[in-house]
Amino acid sequence: MSSAAWPPRLAAETLGTALLLAVVVGSGIMGERLAGGNLAIALLANSIATGAALYALITTFGPISGAHFNPLVTVIELIEGRLPPRLAAGYVLCQFMGAIAGVLAAHAMFELPVLSTLWQPSQHIRTGPAQWWSEVVATFGLITVIFYCVKHKSNSIPAAVGLYITAAYWFTASTSFANPAVTVARSLTDTFAGIRPIDVPGFIGAQCVGAALAYLLYRWMFQRADFVA
Amino acid sequence: MSSAAWPPRLAAETLGTALLLAVVVGSGIMGERLAGGNLAIALLANSIATGAALYALITTFGPISGAHFNPLVTVIELIEGRLPPRLAAGYVLCQFMGAIAGVLAAHAMFELPVLSTLWQPSQHIRTGPAQWWSEVVATFGLITVIFYCVKHKSNSIPAAVGLYITAAYWFTASTSFANPAVTVARSLTDTFAGIRPIDVPGFIGAQCVGAALAYLLYRWMFQRADFVA
Amino acid sequence: MSSAAWPPRLAAETLGTALLLAVVVGSGIMGERLAGGNLAIALLANSIATGAALYALITTFGPISGAHFNPLVTVIELIEGRLPPRLAAGYVLCQFMGAIAGVLAAHAMFELPVLSTLWQPSQHIRTGPAQWWSEVVATFGLITVIFYCVKHKSNSIPAAVGLYITAAYWFTASTSFANPAVTVARSLTDTFAGIRPIDVPGFIGAQCVGAALAYLLYRWMFQRADFVA
Amino acid sequence: MSSAAWPPRLAAETLGTALLLAVVVGSGIMGERLAGGNLAIALLANSIATGAALYALITTFGPISGAHFNPLVTVIELIEGRLPPRLAAGYVLCQFMGAIAGVLAAHAMFELPVLSTLWQPSQHIRTGPAQWWSEVVATFGLITVIFYCVKHKSNSIPAAVGLYITAAYWFTASTSFANPAVTVARSLTDTFAGIRPIDVPGFIGAQCVGAALAYLLYRWMFQRADFVA
Repeated sequence: MSSAAWPPRLAAETLGTALLLAVVVGSGIMGERLAGGNLAIALLANSIATGAALYALITTFGPISGAHFNPLVTVIELIEGRLPPRLAAGYVLCQFMGAIAGVLAAHAMFELPVLSTLWQPSQHIRTGPAQWWSEVVATFGLITVIFYCVKHKSNSIPAAVGLYITAAYWFTASTSFANPAVTVARSLTDTFAGIRPIDVPGFIGAQCVGAALAYLLYRWMFQRADFVA
Repeated sequence: MSSAAWPPRLAAETLGTALLLAVVVGSGIMGERLAGGNLAIALLANSIATGAALYALITTFGPISGAHFNPLVTVIELIEGRLPPRLAAGYVLCQFMGAIAGVLAAHAMFELPVLSTLWQPSQHIRTGPAQWWSEVVATFGLITVIFYCVKHKSNSIPAAVGLYITAAYWFTASTSFANPAVTVARSLTDTFAGIRPIDVPGFIGAQCVGAALAYLLYRWMFQRADFVA
Repeated sequence: MSSAAWPPRLAAETLGTALLLAVVVGSGIMGERLAGGNLAIALLANSIATGAALYALITTFGPISGAHFNPLVTVIELIEGRLPPRLAAGYVLCQFMGAIAGVLAAHAMFELPVLSTLWQPSQHIRTGPAQWWSEVVATFGLITVIFYCVKHKSNSIPAAVGLYITAAYWFTASTSFANPAVTVARSLTDTFAGIRPIDVPGFIGAQCVGAALAYLLYRWMFQRADFVA
Repeated sequence: MSSAAWPPRLAAETLGTALLLAVVVGSGIMGERLAGGNLAIALLANSIATGAALYALITTFGPISGAHFNPLVTVIELIEGRLPPRLAAGYVLCQFMGAIAGVLAAHAMFELPVLSTLWQPSQHIRTGPAQWWSEVVATFGLITVIFYCVKHKSNSIPAAVGLYITAAYWFTASTSFANPAVTVARSLTDTFAGIRPIDVPGFIGAQCVGAALAYLLYRWMFQRADFVA
């Protein structure tokens, strides 16, 4: 989709994922601090800020790297043959590094521990079948929205993804992580958006199941459909 | 509008309606749980999440099935001769099945009864002339927005429908069901978005009146108008 | 802009203005009832619902009548020579009638007086220089947004107008009526969105001043500018 | 980008920046007055109103002046050779004057001091490394979003900028001023959106750092990338 050279593409994935995590974590902190205990208002701020930022970031970095910001998207692009394996590996590495950098950047903005945060992880319990099922559904929906819109050559991808995530904060019990790099990075912040490190594997497993189901349905759906647009 | 084969189109209607109901019911549960009794904040979350999800779902599934997600839309497409009768019947069946599946999926995410929910229906009273009149207005507006935008060949349909529904949650006393499949499915959840089974026929009757009035006006409006675009 | 026959155009102005007022008044009632005294949450619902509905209504009725819904817009179109005088008079009449019908429709949805509302007008005091200055600013901004976007042949008019009004609810002390038909109709509802009948002339006068200033600047701006697009 | 004559361009920058500041300050006052001490609701209103207004203002004035409303944007346009130096100086002067006029206009709407506000500045403390780092991040992100979107010839600039700012209110500890003209003007209002005059230089310094970093990365990114679109 993009013929840009590799270094700008890797820079775009790193920077975009970093800004995304700064928004997810930072707006969670701000929302919780100001909301005076009313978590619905905090989540409203968190979900609106995240969806709004996703729109801006995908619009900004999409033409450079494709704006994946998510290893599951990169892996499917690899399987589809639209990304060489070495570049895909670079994308995934940059997504994890960018995500962690974004959490640290948010901590520095809100006067929370930066370097020591690496051994002061989140205490936020997020486990059990209902949470995992939430992540299956959330990731299934996200992958479906992204790849069907790409298939339709829609220019509404930034809006569709941003608005899907705003909704997914609310309709899933897990607030919809739907992204392994985001999940790992959020284990490093003991704030509103955090997740206990021990709960990370369950979330990532569920996300992989959701993505795999979505991809199988995608293959079936577009193998059989022929469109006139 | 779409020349896709029938199975993907039926799958798209089922899946889209299921995700829509998961959002309507799930965000209602999440909003009510977090809002600490302030129902305005719960409804704000519910209405923003539903409108946002509608945008994403119509953008995703529109090019496959038309993204009706609503038997009233399918029936008007049938009357207009844009859908063969057997396919229209399939659409309606899939919408009802998808809607019920979406409610069960939301219950599983929030640790509420899944299978037993079928005989633990909603206790939420929604009846009386003011509620019915609300559904007439809500459905009249929804059908008008959809079919006029289709007539204009607008590419703003996902945004127009999503934003109309966000507004309709607030300006009607019934919070705007405007969809018989949604109404039946919501009778199965004893949560924020529920409706007593006994109140379902009144709602569906009012929705049919609103849709019929909108369709009659549509026929008159575009019979007389000739446009230059 | 539209070559549609007159009856559909007049029907579109009537119906669009009626639905607009149903949203303004209905979402105000719903917001106030649910918000438990926190008027910021009520105004948030009211402003989001109104902006969302404006987007849907302008997208729906714009290609038919131009979607003025506002006598000040119609008068400027008349001055610009884009509307014959008799049709312009019909637009204005339909806007006032539609606006009043929309208020009555909202009252019926929320079990408030319908016919007797004509002699139970609003008690909501909205007067004084700060309120009038607010209406001057609000109307100046609205007319500027609409006519500059029309001049640019922008296809973002529904979004620009809807979002401007959402903002204007908050940045003006009057919550931005900016429309004589809306102002008259809102004097008939003794609810959140109401205005005392005796305060109507001051609001309409201020709106005319704001519209006139905006139109003068518009003429100067585009007389001097020549664009390459 | 625009071949409009200079006077309309300068008028557009003045008026657009004035309306932007009226929204930032006015919606902050309204939010704080109505929210009954819950600052999260006040900030939600403030951030939604500002993002919505930015969309409308950039759509309205973009084709005339480019809708900079920010001296940092004008300086980069100057460096890029897209603006003659004397016009750039005029833009910056108009932005500062417009911003101050917008604050006074908001004060007049909310019955706060207008002329005497010049010697009753804000008492709102905003200083320290966390605040400065927030402004570095906020401005880096804003300049990145704007100039990458311009480079892509995206027609999503109004939405990307508006939504970025809505998010930035929440994810930065400073609520994201990201604009020297806005910062100076906000020192004149002792309300929700204010900043102590003594804190202004620190903010502007941080903004310049963020803008410089963003511009350096922009030069590197697009020197190396070649796109197929």
